[in-house]
Amino acid sequence: MNWLRPLAAGGCRVTFGGQHLTPSWARRAFAAHPQNQVAEGVVKLQQPKAQLGTDEGKKNFILKPPKGTRDYSPKQMAIRERVFNTIISCFKRHGAEVIDTPVFELKETLMGKYGEDSKLIYDLKDQGGELLSLRYDLTVPFARYLAMNKITNIKRYHIAKVYRRDNPAMTRGRYREFYQCDFDIAGHFDPMIPDAECLKIVHEILSVLQLGDFLIKVNDRRILNGVFAVCGIPDSLFHSTCSTVDKLNKATWEDVKNEMVGEKGLSPEAADRIGEYVRLHGGLGLIEQLDQDPKLSQNKLAREGLGDMKLLFEYLTLFGIADKISFDLSLARGLDYYTGVIYEAVVLQPLNAHREEPVSMGSVAGGGRYDKLVGMFDPKGRKVPCVGVSIGIERLFSIMEQEVEASKEKIRTTETQVLVATPQKNFLDVKLKLISELWDSGIKAEMLYKKNPKLLNQLQYCEDTGIPLTAIIGEQELKDGVVKLRVVASREEVNIPREKLAEEIRRRLES
Amino acid sequence: MNWLRPLAAGGCRVTFGGQHLTPSWARRAFAAHPQNQVAEGVVKLQQPKAQLGTDEGKKNFILKPPKGTRDYSPKQMAIRERVFNTIISCFKRHGAEVIDTPVFELKETLMGKYGEDSKLIYDLKDQGGELLSLRYDLTVPFARYLAMNKITNIKRYHIAKVYRRDNPAMTRGRYREFYQCDFDIAGHFDPMIPDAECLKIVHEILSVLQLGDFLIKVNDRRILNGVFAVCGIPDSLFHSTCSTVDKLNKATWEDVKNEMVGEKGLSPEAADRIGEYVRLHGGLGLIEQLDQDPKLSQNKLAREGLGDMKLLFEYLTLFGIADKISFDLSLARGLDYYTGVIYEAVVLQPLNAHREEPVSMGSVAGGGRYDKLVGMFDPKGRKVPCVGVSIGIERLFSIMEQEVEASKEKIRTTETQVLVATPQKNFLDVKLKLISELWDSGIKAEMLYKKNPKLLNQLQYCEDTGIPLTAIIGEQELKDGVVKLRVVASREEVNIPREKLAEEIRRRLES
Repeated sequence: MNWLRPLAAGGCRVTFGGQHLTPSWARRAFAAHPQNQVAEGVVKLQQPKAQLGTDEGKKNFILKPPKGTRDYSPKQMAIRERVFNTIISCFKRHGAEVIDTPVFELKETLMGKYGEDSKLIYDLKDQGGELLSLRYDLTVPFARYLAMNKITNIKRYHIAKVYRRDNPAMTRGRYREFYQCDFDIAGHFDPMIPDAECLKIVHEILSVLQLGDFLIKVNDRRILNGVFAVCGIPDSLFHSTCSTVDKLNKATWEDVKNEMVGEKGLSPEAADRIGEYVRLHGGLGLIEQLDQDPKLSQNKLAREGLGDMKLLFEYLTLFGIADKISFDLSLARGLDYYTGVIYEAVVLQPLNAHREEPVSMGSVAGGGRYDKLVGMFDPKGRKVPCVGVSIGIERLFSIMEQEVEASKEKIRTTETQVLVATPQKNFLDVKLKLISELWDSGIKAEMLYKKNPKLLNQLQYCEDTGIPLTAIIGEQELKDGVVKLRVVASREEVNIPREKLAEEIRRRLES
Repeated sequence: MNWLRPLAAGGCRVTFGGQHLTPSWARRAFAAHPQNQVAEGVVKLQQPKAQLGTDEGKKNFILKPPKGTRDYSPKQMAIRERVFNTIISCFKRHGAEVIDTPVFELKETLMGKYGEDSKLIYDLKDQGGELLSLRYDLTVPFARYLAMNKITNIKRYHIAKVYRRDNPAMTRGRYREFYQCDFDIAGHFDPMIPDAECLKIVHEILSVLQLGDFLIKVNDRRILNGVFAVCGIPDSLFHSTCSTVDKLNKATWEDVKNEMVGEKGLSPEAADRIGEYVRLHGGLGLIEQLDQDPKLSQNKLAREGLGDMKLLFEYLTLFGIADKISFDLSLARGLDYYTGVIYEAVVLQPLNAHREEPVSMGSVAGGGRYDKLVGMFDPKGRKVPCVGVSIGIERLFSIMEQEVEASKEKIRTTETQVLVATPQKNFLDVKLKLISELWDSGIKAEMLYKKNPKLLNQLQYCEDTGIPLTAIIGEQELKDGVVKLRVVASREEVNIPREKLAEEIRRRLES
């Protein structure tokens, strides 16, 4: 057995880069805990109908969580906490504060921010009082918070669930309730310095998690705007054309062109002109090439965007991460509020010995610059430039859960250090007193909730749940003022003076 | 300045009891961070009307979070995370696993569980598909989870927000969106052992937080049932009479009696008979007295309840916490699902040098035994006995926030260890390369997002935000392959070889 010891949350130091790489999640693999009766893996949505036995009348109903949502079992939570710890450590390493906002907002707060995606917002029932909606992302609530508190300068993270009435695809990590882990920098600063840091953060997190090779696609809304302008697309069609272009990573160019012409009302010629640009991707060379493009170089916004893109690549080179970045003109991002650089990270080949079929992975992180969103909330329209990134946790979980499914090893779901046990009958009061002393000394301790459990059952419980030590107290030990400390793995037993027990447990588990 | 260093989350060891008491939050006091422009304290709900500058038409609307909800600023989050860490450490010390469930449930899942309080449930709008409601507590989702996964044995905690369309009283910590921290033990065990552990947990958490003296009131639904029966109250009025009795801690006996007679339809004589019982409170002596009560001792349920109550006090005495426990017959708890022992903790005199007026504190924790709730969900009605406790975080926050308001000291909202700075112009590329090296070595580092900030501004930023070290690199240092490490507090400066910088920073901050 290879029990994994839980990480200290939040404050733990993660060293990576070069030869100091944190051991990979992809290499650590876990198997289902035999004693853990929680259903693991993909939640079974189709449960048999259950009879509700309330006093208020029996009804047929389905016993399940709502469509597109899931419960997390203790083993899944252990995985989730590790991913969160990796991400939070990274955000804290970059000096971020943390905030929280309510799960719902005034409906008006969310209106006019998401373009076509607004139809996916969950509304609350009008039960009198304010009209409310569940948050769709953490960005709009952040902008509302900044405007409300007149904050013009902050670097914060926010990890919370968001809600979208989308078509769920749960095996691929697409849910209606899912976590976003957002890091944003707000304030008037010199160009591209905070933007480059956001990309560095994505690079750090995906490197530490080691889910396989990854690529961060980068583009700029101003460059797209210039492209659309030189292709003859009116400004009024900018946002909806962005939404269509953004589908290029999932659909063929033919399908995207058909939507542009058939649904968005572009001419086939304009669509073809766009097609010639948005299929380009590369690095500094492509930036230079577009800078020389006779049409595009005439467009003011495109020139600004290309200038900043060059600067961004310069900074990313200093950070040593430019090789993972692709300037990709097909990247458009669906949401309306972006105004400058945009980016999206994709995992290329999930690296995993246990996985037989490659997992279809979408984007695992995305974000960009939104300089006008706070101004939409400010009474005087004052702008606070912002740039940020959102890490999409559920897809990362999906990969890791499959590793757990496939692996042969165990995962601990508690941190219990010692089980208080006895071979004696009618020793409940002695056990209760001893465990109470251990708790009060800060030791993580359990006992079986039976008056007279068999010693074998008590020892078996340690084996099953990975508790490393057993503190055994019988009549002789009680008389001698000692406790027999048993190491579960080696079966070694040693008598410890009772008043030194907590210290001894701590000493043994620290080494 | 007395910068508080953030605790390591989750895994941190808390020692308490005897002379090893963790330093008190009540004694540690914090002042508003001057640089932190986030509005602290009570959220101002009445903001001036703001003009929404969207492309889709301007509207008047109020810039605020929904009624009864609040944002958490970085300083408030720092307080919140410490309370959570205390609670999570305690739950883990008692061997609990952790689960999570969705924020909403099928409306049917919540129906028939909360009695009169059902009217406070938030429903989602019917936008097609399932009818959903926001969770009202974490207990019913837990029972649904157990039944759905056929789990008959688990000890778990769950910390999450719940939702109640109640009348908010935000300065007293009553919100419409608020956290519950739940610890529950499910399974068939010998009587009162898990129940006693739940009370031990409440005692540990309130002791570590040191918010002042506290009392844990205990009662049993079976004893109440017996009391009502011998007073001539029909079974059909049990739940609604419980709801009324439960108001005794806020209302006078006269008011409670009036509600019993006027609204609930009890006779004045029956109400008076109840009044003689429910105003009793005490310890073991009261249990013995009721055991001898000629009427009550004839009632089977009451006898069972009194027997278990005696056992509970025995175990609590072994835990050394019986002096904080009061057997109180007025405690009834509003919710329908309790079947046995029930309890509620109240803070008696908030201990705080900075607070001038005593804060009106309600219950800060509550819970009890609910042996039939899982059976309500199980297709075959199989019961899984459960007992649990819920810690009400918001009231604890309220007290701590007032301390922060009143105090003169500072609270750090980031964990940044070092600021990368330069006295040189046009040294942005050098700073970017250095900070990147530090991040990759796991050091928490920041820099100002300006091309050419003044050195004084860089040093001032450290003073303002509590960053303990500055890593200064100029032309000379660059040439010599060193970095000048400055201790902000002492202004001591020392040159460190660049490749040893991360190690040196770590060494200095660990001591």
